[in-house]
Amino acid sequence: MQIFKGWKEFKAKPQAEKFQYFSRPSSLQNKTIHHLIYAQQLTREFTGELFALADKIRDMAKTKEGMDSLQRLASDKRAMLFFVQPSTRTFLSFLNACHILGIKTSEIRDTATSSEIKGESPEDAVRTFSSYVDLIIVRHAEEGFAEKSAWVLNQSGRPIPIINGGSGKDEHPTQALLDLYTINRSLGKIDGKKIAMVGDLKRGRTIRSLSQLLANYSDVEIFFAAAEQYQMKDDILEYLKKRGVPFSLTSDFESVIPKADVIYCTRIQDEYDENGESEKIDYRKFHFEERHLASLKKDAIIMHPFPRRLEIATAIDNDPRAKYWEQARNGMWIRAALMLKILGREP
Amino acid sequence: MQIFKGWKEFKAKPQAEKFQYFSRPSSLQNKTIHHLIYAQQLTREFTGELFALADKIRDMAKTKEGMDSLQRLASDKRAMLFFVQPSTRTFLSFLNACHILGIKTSEIRDTATSSEIKGESPEDAVRTFSSYVDLIIVRHAEEGFAEKSAWVLNQSGRPIPIINGGSGKDEHPTQALLDLYTINRSLGKIDGKKIAMVGDLKRGRTIRSLSQLLANYSDVEIFFAAAEQYQMKDDILEYLKKRGVPFSLTSDFESVIPKADVIYCTRIQDEYDENGESEKIDYRKFHFEERHLASLKKDAIIMHPFPRRLEIATAIDNDPRAKYWEQARNGMWIRAALMLKILGREP
Amino acid sequence: MQIFKGWKEFKAKPQAEKFQYFSRPSSLQNKTIHHLIYAQQLTREFTGELFALADKIRDMAKTKEGMDSLQRLASDKRAMLFFVQPSTRTFLSFLNACHILGIKTSEIRDTATSSEIKGESPEDAVRTFSSYVDLIIVRHAEEGFAEKSAWVLNQSGRPIPIINGGSGKDEHPTQALLDLYTINRSLGKIDGKKIAMVGDLKRGRTIRSLSQLLANYSDVEIFFAAAEQYQMKDDILEYLKKRGVPFSLTSDFESVIPKADVIYCTRIQDEYDENGESEKIDYRKFHFEERHLASLKKDAIIMHPFPRRLEIATAIDNDPRAKYWEQARNGMWIRAALMLKILGREP
Repeated sequence: MQIFKGWKEFKAKPQAEKFQYFSRPSSLQNKTIHHLIYAQQLTREFTGELFALADKIRDMAKTKEGMDSLQRLASDKRAMLFFVQPSTRTFLSFLNACHILGIKTSEIRDTATSSEIKGESPEDAVRTFSSYVDLIIVRHAEEGFAEKSAWVLNQSGRPIPIINGGSGKDEHPTQALLDLYTINRSLGKIDGKKIAMVGDLKRGRTIRSLSQLLANYSDVEIFFAAAEQYQMKDDILEYLKKRGVPFSLTSDFESVIPKADVIYCTRIQDEYDENGESEKIDYRKFHFEERHLASLKKDAIIMHPFPRRLEIATAIDNDPRAKYWEQARNGMWIRAALMLKILGREP
Repeated sequence: MQIFKGWKEFKAKPQAEKFQYFSRPSSLQNKTIHHLIYAQQLTREFTGELFALADKIRDMAKTKEGMDSLQRLASDKRAMLFFVQPSTRTFLSFLNACHILGIKTSEIRDTATSSEIKGESPEDAVRTFSSYVDLIIVRHAEEGFAEKSAWVLNQSGRPIPIINGGSGKDEHPTQALLDLYTINRSLGKIDGKKIAMVGDLKRGRTIRSLSQLLANYSDVEIFFAAAEQYQMKDDILEYLKKRGVPFSLTSDFESVIPKADVIYCTRIQDEYDENGESEKIDYRKFHFEERHLASLKKDAIIMHPFPRRLEIATAIDNDPRAKYWEQARNGMWIRAALMLKILGREP
Repeated sequence: MQIFKGWKEFKAKPQAEKFQYFSRPSSLQNKTIHHLIYAQQLTREFTGELFALADKIRDMAKTKEGMDSLQRLASDKRAMLFFVQPSTRTFLSFLNACHILGIKTSEIRDTATSSEIKGESPEDAVRTFSSYVDLIIVRHAEEGFAEKSAWVLNQSGRPIPIINGGSGKDEHPTQALLDLYTINRSLGKIDGKKIAMVGDLKRGRTIRSLSQLLANYSDVEIFFAAAEQYQMKDDILEYLKKRGVPFSLTSDFESVIPKADVIYCTRIQDEYDENGESEKIDYRKFHFEERHLASLKKDAIIMHPFPRRLEIATAIDNDPRAKYWEQARNGMWIRAALMLKILGREP
């Protein structure tokens, strides 16, 4: 099919070469992100601008007057949330970020209500959505779906921005963004921090994206604490080596607790199990229990992308170092900042 | 789990002792409802204020200018409608009440699209939702779910209000509220009225809540007309005795029609059947048929919480005494009033 | 049931006699559409007014200031999208048209979340919805459902407008409207044009409605290109004869390509198959392939109501004559115009 003749060629390119294609057309402001597909598009500079913008938005949001101003910023814009993979948190934080900015929203959350059952291709669906809205946020179980969507729209006469809200096992750039924002906001900076990542490191896209982005900061150190079968994959480890980020692998979670500034817990992604293999592992060794609080640094923070099962005891939910609720709310503010930036509507 | 250590203790308290805990924190205006969980929180005084406020809102809503003013009252607020039990009427009237007040809305209507399938606890879900919005309206099949949600949020750093939109078999306070509002608006007052309640009185939460609230008014009398197996339960009858409300039980529906100022019909709640027991009863004796209109008082009213099956003949839908359509619309106005009150945004 | 005693009588009337009943009550402006149920209500005059209004809306929408003005036009109105039959395009274009005009929206997209499971009649559901909103857009698998809804509401004390968003196999008036708008906008006029309709003409409601409306224009000619089993039905052919519209039937699609100003492709509606009969036909002969571009007139256009399967090769998606993406977007603008007209809120 001719329209896709360039797709395979594009897809095969090294990631970094693609970023230019995801930038805003030069007619506006060059070098700014237009489609956000990969976490690696988020440079330290751009991320810093987003942090400042998110802080400004939450500050404005404290008064009714400020909220009303925020809602005027993008009151003429319409977004589509195309979420065909179940999600609550990412969905709600994008939706409410839209509401904060006055963006009107359309939702597709279930393919059963959509034309897919009439045999439409996902590419046609995305191009159709682009007819009605100014921005599409995509969450899809298929790897590379967001990238393909951006590619399809760039080929069309209406190349509106795509934001990847989670695509396949690999990429979830806005989650990595809110994680960085949470570390920066809670600890004042990211440079020099020691981050322990715990749980299912092999299949957790959050952890993968965050690890890569941490390489943009100085003197960061990472501890990967997981059962052997679920340790971080070599591709990320290679990347960190190349970027000069020190890291260590361990299956002894308790040993890293006293050393870490950030404890980042994740759940077992057993929806990706092929044979119930997760059940064979005793994951209690990787749970953060109340007794661990004693060995945790006074100013360290505990994070979790949620939903959680038993990875963090609810007994510590109200400890001031437990930042996972703030982390969720941070997602809303930083996504609002991202959309303002992409739409070119900073206040 | 430490965070819940207080929950069982709290849950076991007598209802009236809990109400203080559901009030707005004293830093604002003490004694005002913050979480609405139980119908019994609705005092005669508070309910009277809501009636007046609802009248004012519907009056403003008659002009475009008034509607635009209403939408500015809470334009900075965001609500979550967390409806995991099917509902059309309650959902739509809350949603449109939000729209009238400019409140932006997020919906969870189906747990299949939510994180529950990833094993998240409902408490975590509610606390997460609280990160994104300013108010949560909860409808849940589990008894006590709304109460637990309010308790969880009060323990957290972000105790936003919970409104119970129907929880288990027992409580549906905003339905009772709109029923009272409908009686008051149609008949000018509630004091001194004779109310016949008909149908499945055992399992209808609407009827249970309304019966209790009627005790706040003077000289009210209640006729409970139902098949023996579905008569009102003893707990409510005891309550009425204690409050000095005269009532009588009958299985002869036709005998109460000429005496009543209000005929309140309800459907058989056969979704709570354990063994298809509802099918064994001839419920036609409890249907309001066209021929009954002749014996009905000229200024009496007919109500139904809807959906209906055959409880009221469609032949009387346009009789001026049939108030069930207005009743539905009243639900929207009184819920708007309730939200304004809870958010502290009366015009 | 007395309230429906007039329904059967009404339903049996000739279509044209019903239109008065779907007009706006004379207290406002007589002769204007109030309920849009049938494509045939769309006179050439009314349609022309809508074309002009849609052009004006899209012009205003080019600036933020214009968008903000548009959103004030109907900011006090609330619409219900009652879509119990799967649909993406029609749903999204109505929804976003509402957003453009500031109309607040409620959605019912799945009867599983609605009261139908409690045994409520669809008539009661529609009358209940009318309690909360100012306009209902209905899509339903049942033939005549929109008409019945309009009838029910006209009998009630709150006769808000109904717009038929697709009802059964027969009627989809706003699709026909956007098709006409697309032809008019792309070719400058409809008079004198030659339109080829291709695919499943027997079961495609789009095609049926459009064929009838084309009779309102001068010197139009229609080519029906389909497999014999799926040719246009006699009722439409009779209608065209009576209105003096020349047409021809063929199973040789390629022969009509060079003659047509408009190629209107449609997919096989196999969801209406009774026995998998569609599978027995080789439909490739009715696909528009890249090689066909050569024989197509320079200023002809290609349309498709979408979703598509293989009816049009993606290779021609970016040919300037491929208007199907614009067609989708046109649906949003013309539906916005229709709603403004029905609500009496033209700028």
